[in-house]
Amino acid sequence: MASIFTRIVEGEIPCYKIAESDRFFAFLDINPVQKGHTLVIPKQETDYLFDVENETLGGLIVFAKSIARAIDTSLQPIRTGIIVEGLEVPHAHIHLIPIYDANQSFSLGRSLSLPSEEMQSIAQTISAEVHL
Amino acid sequence: MASIFTRIVEGEIPCYKIAESDRFFAFLDINPVQKGHTLVIPKQETDYLFDVENETLGGLIVFAKSIARAIDTSLQPIRTGIIVEGLEVPHAHIHLIPIYDANQSFSLGRSLSLPSEEMQSIAQTISAEVHL
Repeated sequence: MASIFTRIVEGEIPCYKIAESDRFFAFLDINPVQKGHTLVIPKQETDYLFDVENETLGGLIVFAKSIARAIDTSLQPIRTGIIVEGLEVPHAHIHLIPIYDANQSFSLGRSLSLPSEEMQSIAQTISAEVHL
Repeated sequence: MASIFTRIVEGEIPCYKIAESDRFFAFLDINPVQKGHTLVIPKQETDYLFDVENETLGGLIVFAKSIARAIDTSLQPIRTGIIVEGLEVPHAHIHLIPIYDANQSFSLGRSLSLPSEEMQSIAQTISAEVHL
């Protein structure tokens, strides 16, 4: 059965989309720990990030860089960090998490509750700054 | 002035080394949050990971994959995760953190205190499984 992320890529499940290329896809995490928290995935399903083959893995991080720069330009955090844990959805994904406060804990713990209109607005704001 | 990581690469400051290539270097984090917590860096100093140029950034994650696989083989965690926060040392680095317990919090918080002999032993155990 297709992963929830594959169903998002295929448009079966809605998302706050940021950008896509032929091989990669970026969208807002529905449980954001910070404003602008984004997931970056390869379209092809692989459970474990470190099982993704080298050329695609290299392409994925370069795609993530484009998204992180768009987050940095549009939302002006100190910088954007990465978390990869990957135990919940069996489809490799990189969390891009803007860091607004150096003293705040950096983890996938408690998420913000943002209204749909704000999520949509954040996605559009970031998306407008993506240059692939 | 050279970053503390450049001084480690150049051998001025000792480390528990895992592996190196012409462009990348891996060594145990001196404040491990889990046994086998490793730092992977480009030898060339760049403060922000997403300022590293594309070809080197892609190479860095592929190098990190080799190290993660060595951690997985030698220490047998569930898998190995990633954290990049990067606010403390101005030299881009990827934290590779073995996940032994899916319910444990995944962050750079409290570190273990492991004796030097154990750190040396962990480094050797991982290093023996690295295939670049």
